[in-house]
Amino acid sequence: MKIIKDIKPEDYQAILKRPFEADNSVAEIVKDIISEVKLNGDKALIDITKRIDKKDVKSIEVSKDEMVAQSTIVSQDLKEAIAVAIANIERFHSAQLPIDVDMETLQGVKCMLKYRPLERVGLYIPGGTAPLISTLLMLAVPAKVTGCKELIACSPPEPSPEIFYACNLLGVRLFRVGGAQAIAAMAFGTKTIPRVDKLFGPGNRYVTEAKVQASSMGIPIDMPAGPSEVLVIADDNSNPIYVAADLLSQAEHGVDSQVVLVATSERSIEQILIEVEKQLNQLPRKEIASRCLNNSIAILVDSIEKAIEISNYYAPEHLILSIDNAENYIDLIENAGSVFIGEYSPESAGDYSSGTNHTLPTGGFAKNWSGVTTLSFMKTITYQQLTKNGLSSIAKSIVTLARAEGLEAHARAAELRLND
Amino acid sequence: MKIIKDIKPEDYQAILKRPFEADNSVAEIVKDIISEVKLNGDKALIDITKRIDKKDVKSIEVSKDEMVAQSTIVSQDLKEAIAVAIANIERFHSAQLPIDVDMETLQGVKCMLKYRPLERVGLYIPGGTAPLISTLLMLAVPAKVTGCKELIACSPPEPSPEIFYACNLLGVRLFRVGGAQAIAAMAFGTKTIPRVDKLFGPGNRYVTEAKVQASSMGIPIDMPAGPSEVLVIADDNSNPIYVAADLLSQAEHGVDSQVVLVATSERSIEQILIEVEKQLNQLPRKEIASRCLNNSIAILVDSIEKAIEISNYYAPEHLILSIDNAENYIDLIENAGSVFIGEYSPESAGDYSSGTNHTLPTGGFAKNWSGVTTLSFMKTITYQQLTKNGLSSIAKSIVTLARAEGLEAHARAAELRLND
Repeated sequence: MKIIKDIKPEDYQAILKRPFEADNSVAEIVKDIISEVKLNGDKALIDITKRIDKKDVKSIEVSKDEMVAQSTIVSQDLKEAIAVAIANIERFHSAQLPIDVDMETLQGVKCMLKYRPLERVGLYIPGGTAPLISTLLMLAVPAKVTGCKELIACSPPEPSPEIFYACNLLGVRLFRVGGAQAIAAMAFGTKTIPRVDKLFGPGNRYVTEAKVQASSMGIPIDMPAGPSEVLVIADDNSNPIYVAADLLSQAEHGVDSQVVLVATSERSIEQILIEVEKQLNQLPRKEIASRCLNNSIAILVDSIEKAIEISNYYAPEHLILSIDNAENYIDLIENAGSVFIGEYSPESAGDYSSGTNHTLPTGGFAKNWSGVTTLSFMKTITYQQLTKNGLSSIAKSIVTLARAEGLEAHARAAELRLND
Repeated sequence: MKIIKDIKPEDYQAILKRPFEADNSVAEIVKDIISEVKLNGDKALIDITKRIDKKDVKSIEVSKDEMVAQSTIVSQDLKEAIAVAIANIERFHSAQLPIDVDMETLQGVKCMLKYRPLERVGLYIPGGTAPLISTLLMLAVPAKVTGCKELIACSPPEPSPEIFYACNLLGVRLFRVGGAQAIAAMAFGTKTIPRVDKLFGPGNRYVTEAKVQASSMGIPIDMPAGPSEVLVIADDNSNPIYVAADLLSQAEHGVDSQVVLVATSERSIEQILIEVEKQLNQLPRKEIASRCLNNSIAILVDSIEKAIEISNYYAPEHLILSIDNAENYIDLIENAGSVFIGEYSPESAGDYSSGTNHTLPTGGFAKNWSGVTTLSFMKTITYQQLTKNGLSSIAKSIVTLARAEGLEAHARAAELRLND
């Protein structure tokens, strides 16, 4: 990690810049895949999967029987771990259920706002080196809490027994298709995979690009996703063993993960870096974590307030406050996906089992996007019901504004009703 | 209006299809405009405005002095009409302010969700034939209710005195620039126009395309907007004068507006159409309304339930229930932007002064997008704070899931904290 002292606001942009690789070839490839899926449906899915994943898929949908059979392979320990995570995610997301509004703005002018679950949602579960069970839980549990009728998940062939088990448990329909082709199938529908109302979930840059392209065609998406990141704020009393473990659990995600340490104590930075080296050697993903840390920075500042100012500028996906009286500082936080307060709140708690959602905005998008919440699975409808007196009380306002906008019929629609 | 009897679900798609003109030239033109603004900033804004709007803009930002001076031209009636609208919009949107969540999922596992206002929002106010004061009110009032610090509005030169007045009243910074160039300026920032956190507001297809392109670059937008539309459900007791007035107040918006009447009574359809002809002749925008109605349809059905089924399929921006006991049917409504219940609730009430928002999803997007609410101007941040015991109670779940996903450092970050 590179150590930076004496950072000034005018340096933030350069020092906190995320590495960004524009790659126009991705957009073109994804555009072609979407066209192919729109044109040839299931056949395209099978063809593309053969071409890209080198897999022969006989049946795109995983059957209930397959789910049940594969579930027997899953260990009892893992089933219990999943149960704890589900229970906590369910509790926290149930507590987020919004309350409908039903009020009168004036006597006889009743206005209502109702939240309705989306009917059918599409959850992308990345494949890769390990089964991302937690991604499925973080999306399917809130969708169920919200009341979505149909949950569709796509994951590259062949999804692991753990994914089969969790899908069966949560009533999720699972399809063995990944990449941009999976996003295209959920966005536009094929004979086998139904068209969904909104797309959720992380993925590689083909998946992300496909989500962005689907979104430009009117399909809502949870957020534009990118490499994961953490910013840890430490002080002189931080436990270097814990902070090092948190930095490493971010660094092991991938070589493009972002790790930033901001500390008020030089001694603390030194101790943390020593601990990082020590713990790094014990990790199976040492190679990845080490390459990630080479691109990472530690910033020395003179106050916690300054550290939070830097964090607000950076807008990290995860922010860990490994400092004394951490809870006293949370009102200063403007931009962050999820905040971990105090030394017993490691990021991995929120990644898996505390109940918060780990689907969070990255790349600085915490400034203006939200992580996944219960509301992500809902839409709103407004209603109004006026009495004759109610309409009468606002008619002059309606009529005057309508005429000022040159919309005479709008004015008359109100006037006519009061002329009887 | 074309009258359709005996509609079957398999006909919905063809009969309820919205006219859609794909025009790839728009995307290319907008792409070039965005590039020009990103490259040349304010100079590009002035150049493009000269080229497209044929206007020489000396000062992009409207000064406070100009606002105050122009405000004196606005009539007292209009000022009062604006005041009534603002008060009701403020009441309804204040009632929507969400409640933060602060709870324990398990003892010692505290999870929180906080809603934070976006810092700076961009409001697009279309120009055209008449000043769209109501658009400004529908966006600026909820933004203020939410607590957004800075409200930026762009409108093509020269915004009307009414817009100057309302901006001054609501503390909105106003810039005289329109079209895709205004969206580009707010999305990416220029020397004069600051970069915003989210883009709001309707516009022509260049504006809409620019919002979609900005959104694919990570700037959130309120929704993809399109031509306005209404679906009115009528029964044998509907007042044909009122229904005709509602159909016409949609039809006068523009030739591409969509008007659909669904009625359970043939007699009622006939009477409504006679009334439409009668009222049409009295309208200044008769030409526009008449052309719009030529593309519109009236559907005869045998029950209100069937009418609502059709409406749910169509997912109208505005749904008017001009029927007996209308309130008994609202739970059947799945997809609609805003619903007007009973004969004293004309669409123009919600367009201006009842308090509901008129920024609503069109083109079928009411199926999976929401209209503008107070939440549109907020983002969420989650927080967690665990005690040692709290962490201990979920550690086995964290560790088991992390190892199942091959993320050893995640497991250790929890374990290490409990080994002391």
